[in-house]
Amino acid sequence: MQDISAYVAKNKERFINELIQLLKIPSVSADPAYSPDVIDAAAYVKTSLLEAGCDTVEICETKGYPIVYGEKIIDPNLPTVLVYGHYDVQPPDPINLWDSPPFEPVIKTTDLHPEGAIFARGACDDKGQMYMHVKALEYMVQNNDLPCNVKFMIEGEEEVGSENLSEFVANNKEKLTNDIILISDTGMIAKDVPSITTGLRGLSYVEVEVTGPNRDLHSGLYGGAVANPINILTKMIASLHDENNHITIPGFYDKVEELSKEDRAEMAKAPFNLEHYQNALKIASVYGEKGYTTNERNSIRPTLDVNGIWGGYTGAGAKTVIASKAYAKISMRLVPNQDWKEITQLFKTHFESLAPAGVTVKVTPHHGGQGYVTPIDHIGYQAASKAYEATFGKTPIPQRSGGSIPIVALFEKELNSKTILMGFGLDSDAIHSPNEHFGVWNYLKGIETIPHFYHHFTELTK
Amino acid sequence: MQDISAYVAKNKERFINELIQLLKIPSVSADPAYSPDVIDAAAYVKTSLLEAGCDTVEICETKGYPIVYGEKIIDPNLPTVLVYGHYDVQPPDPINLWDSPPFEPVIKTTDLHPEGAIFARGACDDKGQMYMHVKALEYMVQNNDLPCNVKFMIEGEEEVGSENLSEFVANNKEKLTNDIILISDTGMIAKDVPSITTGLRGLSYVEVEVTGPNRDLHSGLYGGAVANPINILTKMIASLHDENNHITIPGFYDKVEELSKEDRAEMAKAPFNLEHYQNALKIASVYGEKGYTTNERNSIRPTLDVNGIWGGYTGAGAKTVIASKAYAKISMRLVPNQDWKEITQLFKTHFESLAPAGVTVKVTPHHGGQGYVTPIDHIGYQAASKAYEATFGKTPIPQRSGGSIPIVALFEKELNSKTILMGFGLDSDAIHSPNEHFGVWNYLKGIETIPHFYHHFTELTK
Repeated sequence: MQDISAYVAKNKERFINELIQLLKIPSVSADPAYSPDVIDAAAYVKTSLLEAGCDTVEICETKGYPIVYGEKIIDPNLPTVLVYGHYDVQPPDPINLWDSPPFEPVIKTTDLHPEGAIFARGACDDKGQMYMHVKALEYMVQNNDLPCNVKFMIEGEEEVGSENLSEFVANNKEKLTNDIILISDTGMIAKDVPSITTGLRGLSYVEVEVTGPNRDLHSGLYGGAVANPINILTKMIASLHDENNHITIPGFYDKVEELSKEDRAEMAKAPFNLEHYQNALKIASVYGEKGYTTNERNSIRPTLDVNGIWGGYTGAGAKTVIASKAYAKISMRLVPNQDWKEITQLFKTHFESLAPAGVTVKVTPHHGGQGYVTPIDHIGYQAASKAYEATFGKTPIPQRSGGSIPIVALFEKELNSKTILMGFGLDSDAIHSPNEHFGVWNYLKGIETIPHFYHHFTELTK
Repeated sequence: MQDISAYVAKNKERFINELIQLLKIPSVSADPAYSPDVIDAAAYVKTSLLEAGCDTVEICETKGYPIVYGEKIIDPNLPTVLVYGHYDVQPPDPINLWDSPPFEPVIKTTDLHPEGAIFARGACDDKGQMYMHVKALEYMVQNNDLPCNVKFMIEGEEEVGSENLSEFVANNKEKLTNDIILISDTGMIAKDVPSITTGLRGLSYVEVEVTGPNRDLHSGLYGGAVANPINILTKMIASLHDENNHITIPGFYDKVEELSKEDRAEMAKAPFNLEHYQNALKIASVYGEKGYTTNERNSIRPTLDVNGIWGGYTGAGAKTVIASKAYAKISMRLVPNQDWKEITQLFKTHFESLAPAGVTVKVTPHHGGQGYVTPIDHIGYQAASKAYEATFGKTPIPQRSGGSIPIVALFEKELNSKTILMGFGLDSDAIHSPNEHFGVWNYLKGIETIPHFYHHFTELTK
């Protein structure tokens, strides 16, 4: 394992260039216009896995985008690591806020990344982090240093809810048998503060449509006399939080676990500087549920956020119109024990009940997933902890994330395996935002750390 | 005057075709992309006025779109009618809801228009209604039947707030001297219920921008911990109405005139069928300020409507983002005595005060105008009433409109003249909406009625 640093240093340029080629493919799964590109990205992943040393790689068709499955089985008696990742990316909107085109990767230095960072949509989420695993495999195969079996399952619909993955997993339980699942699709606290994500929030994502009159109306002739769908929509959304920023949907908190004072005190030990947090976002104040800290609000508490809203005239100048329809995309982050399907139904029932006479409301669920927790006494967590110790020189901090990877709960249910979330991104990487990037240092550190996990995990299962 | 019916019948096809040529010019003043077309429309109006018999016509440049001024002075001792209209039109959005392209006029019959209606943006508002006056002049000149002087002032910025008209009017008081102003830019109750608009609402139109974090954020990692500008915007807008749909801006109602029981009883005599109104809009119920009827809500009461809202991800599928910014266009219809500049300032102060720490708010006034009332004992009103009697066979009903023509109040202030609003459109004409149209019957009836106004007005001034 001493070789890994030297191997990474020697192949650094090639590792970066291979990732850049993948980042050039605009594999936006949410927008059908990019459909051929999403397919191209799958083909690129297949080729990469074969070149890295997989014995077989298949493009597994689904009703949506395909899943790339690859494996290298060296001994059925040895443990098996299943690597999950995704090759699709978020839409790049709003494009005008990018400093360089989202699909023309460039390397630039920043204060946090003096070694340079790769700027492109998907650089961190998840192409860069997924590709670390491909290159870690290459190292282990090239250097006869692979201690166990490995399987890869790289999908193309993570950013649109992994709708077809559950069927694939349910139908391929045998093929996907494993002892631990390894995912790099989260972050760490800081470059000098390695951390492992032990919890994820669940998600319920819906779209709502409020319809008033059967056509757009002149706001002078009809203003004040008919329900304006935009005004009504704002009233309905506003009522979803009370004055303490608690969510008002009946039953919403019924299954939310209240952490003990001790657990909250333990969490509060993680390094956090409120002033720095606010400065980084250029906000004068944080904002959220009364009675909880910022780090609690974004991890152990459920939320409801509008992700998009539109209706009426949005062009230049003024148009005195009452729109016939108004729309919003709304997502709720859930905590473990909240069932996303139940929450989606609670939302739908409540939201529809808010509509006054004069409008009709349609609630369309987009997708969702359950929350998840990994105990820190699990051997997978311990192997990961030792791997970080080897490359960072310090013990990583266990951390609950506010994000969602709905398929982690699915894997546990269908494959009966725990998942280890070894993230190497930083909060400042701007995933899902303009100018997404991934530090070159982080990318290479990930490649270096992963083989250590394989070794420690194999040791610990003996 | 017996000739007018015959003249209209004889020239009907030509009158329609000339209007269609004007409607083909997409003179959308709100969108700079249409700028050359707006200029083309002004040129078309100039040519039409000259052909109709004006002695001189000028294209008067402004800081924005030009004003077309024309006149025919037959005797300085006779009274002068000033006709106002506009050649610009509302944006055609949303275009996909038009049954035929907005700038390719077609004539189709409808239940209300068995004689056919011209479908195009601007057909009624205001190209069709403005062109009636051009053709009425043509009749009077051709038949030696013009009893007084006439001036035309046709502008190209009515749909964006007539920003440059006030300066033009203030600088050209001598040129614009008149005894009465005549405008057709409103509607009538029904084809068999002629009406004259005696009151207009004022307008204050603003755009608001709420800014939270300095970039779009991942809603999982930041959700619940920072103010989401869209959620905040919905809360701020929702709070602008209370549970009785009264507007909550402090001072907003201070100058609103409460009509007497008698006045309200008089208004209530106008024919109105709530069921028919609701059916026409396909709504289950009307909605508005407690304590007022539908016809009061849309005429004598001020309102606040969101005309457009946008923010975050609005494309296909789902994007789990917290937008950095959210926007809305908001307009308030005002009643006489409410000063639009004062109301705009009250709105701005109040709206800014609603912003919680964690967001910043910007309020940008677009434009506005004062409300207006014409007394029914004015000779202009009486001349119009007699004109309708001559062509409709019944006395028109005086009516307060919910719409705004801000320049009417300006004309009174600068030119010291009252305005007569002879509208020939119907509520169902869908002005400002997809499938705007203007009945051929209404168009021709307007051309026929206008010369009667000139005669009666000249008689009454003697």
